[in-house]
Amino acid sequence: MRIVVLCGGVGAARFLDGVVRSVGDPSEVTAICNVSDDLQWHGLHVSPDIDTILYTLAGLEGEFGWGLDGDTHTSLEELRALGQDEWFTIGDRDLATHLWRSEQLRDGATLAEATAALAAARGLACQLVPVTNDPHPTIVVTAERELEFQEYFVHRRAQDPVVGFRFPGAEAARPAPGVLEAIDDAELLLFAPSNPFVSIDPLFAVPGVRSAVEAASARRVAVSPIIGGAAVKGPAADMLRSLGHEVSALGVARLYEGVIDTFVLDETDAELVPAIEALGLKTIVLDSMMRDRPGRARVASEVLAAVSV
Amino acid sequence: MRIVVLCGGVGAARFLDGVVRSVGDPSEVTAICNVSDDLQWHGLHVSPDIDTILYTLAGLEGEFGWGLDGDTHTSLEELRALGQDEWFTIGDRDLATHLWRSEQLRDGATLAEATAALAAARGLACQLVPVTNDPHPTIVVTAERELEFQEYFVHRRAQDPVVGFRFPGAEAARPAPGVLEAIDDAELLLFAPSNPFVSIDPLFAVPGVRSAVEAASARRVAVSPIIGGAAVKGPAADMLRSLGHEVSALGVARLYEGVIDTFVLDETDAELVPAIEALGLKTIVLDSMMRDRPGRARVASEVLAAVSV
Repeated sequence: MRIVVLCGGVGAARFLDGVVRSVGDPSEVTAICNVSDDLQWHGLHVSPDIDTILYTLAGLEGEFGWGLDGDTHTSLEELRALGQDEWFTIGDRDLATHLWRSEQLRDGATLAEATAALAAARGLACQLVPVTNDPHPTIVVTAERELEFQEYFVHRRAQDPVVGFRFPGAEAARPAPGVLEAIDDAELLLFAPSNPFVSIDPLFAVPGVRSAVEAASARRVAVSPIIGGAAVKGPAADMLRSLGHEVSALGVARLYEGVIDTFVLDETDAELVPAIEALGLKTIVLDSMMRDRPGRARVASEVLAAVSV
Repeated sequence: MRIVVLCGGVGAARFLDGVVRSVGDPSEVTAICNVSDDLQWHGLHVSPDIDTILYTLAGLEGEFGWGLDGDTHTSLEELRALGQDEWFTIGDRDLATHLWRSEQLRDGATLAEATAALAAARGLACQLVPVTNDPHPTIVVTAERELEFQEYFVHRRAQDPVVGFRFPGAEAARPAPGVLEAIDDAELLLFAPSNPFVSIDPLFAVPGVRSAVEAASARRVAVSPIIGGAAVKGPAADMLRSLGHEVSALGVARLYEGVIDTFVLDETDAELVPAIEALGLKTIVLDSMMRDRPGRARVASEVLAAVSV
């Protein structure tokens, strides 16, 4: 089955890992990856969401979902010793990814080509594609200031109440080769349990992506990143709140209205089913918390089984 | 006393360390550094001779004179795991130097400015100046092929008999700001015990440097890198041989004819004194082997004492 998974970071990586482990032919799974939280780190191109997916699918991810398990931070500490203000954590093994990606980009490769090379080197069976090869940053708008995403998220620890977002590169960004085709060809479109504002919206902001999803003949299924009124990971709940949305799976489902036909929510939130179905959406209710590697495959295979009925 | 030291790599770093420890005011010592063995490593600018000097003067150098003592190689091993052919050793702490230098260069700094920032961050008291900010590679000509210096030296382990050198960037290279002025102002010009072909000649190949040295009013003193017919470090002896020179302190002294007035040789080679003095050079004979840190200061202070007589 040709499956497209629209992906942010940690939640997406775990769900995608489950999908890849649950299907017969992982090479038919295409992950379309957010790049709007990419950053330049000492001149190197870092793609945190893609890296999280690379490491998670290779079974190497760190304890909190990002970075490499057991990685050291010798270069980072030495940069600090040289007087640099280091607020973004890059591990020593991790650094190899950024060095090689950046070298490829400087040598003329696209981000998609560099990502494919990294995925192949990690032995991944599915396709990883950045939504665009073009610069496409998320600018987080707070009451006080505008911040680049990692400045907001890591440096300022997501403490600023968010009033909106800007995607200044979006208009000029083109979908990476194969993105629209994969969406068009898919037999199933899955939205990973990712942040709707800073993972999914930036995908949709690339011209052609949202309309391709809306025009797709495939079933379109989104997994809620909110369980029991809280985000499993990251600032999604705070953003829902500060932007005036209900902080619940229902609040997320409303954001997907008109885009998906099926919404996956946790059994904890089963009382929201009538309200979500009132939006015209089918629902799938299950234990959606991916506590460990087997849990990822369980969640993914339950979703796949439910949509195959 | 305003001292200029013309420098290659490991031998120069050790001698310079001794000089800096032997003078009253290290800020009056200027090291003019070879950059012709610089290389691009995964898109980063590596300056092996400058790095060796930075690390040695900071008391951090590795066992064999280069790199940082006790450094790990996690990033390098990960690059290998990703399928990269890594023949140049970069340590994890070491990598911070190259990341920060490369970032500064990309942000518009000159190599001299980046070097000064690195020297300041390491707390160095003397001035480190690359001979030029411009690309100025050494091409090693062997019977079979032409090789970039590190390709010859590290990748092929200096196994190819050398028939000559080319400095294709030399004609267009300009001395870095302050280089000619430092030579002109110096009260003492010291040639570190460096390879005459691949450390000193590339300095002279930068237009204006050799003539500034020849026109300088200072005493000009070279320390032999050859002791007892062998190079203390590196391929100098093999190069002397394959290029048809005598493999001895005398062979080196002949290469400095017309440039220096005083030649420093090891007591092992005392029988060469008459032949060297016959070249019109004064000689200083001492135990010139710098076995350890105190040995460096001893050699430097004996040289300084001898030329002050």
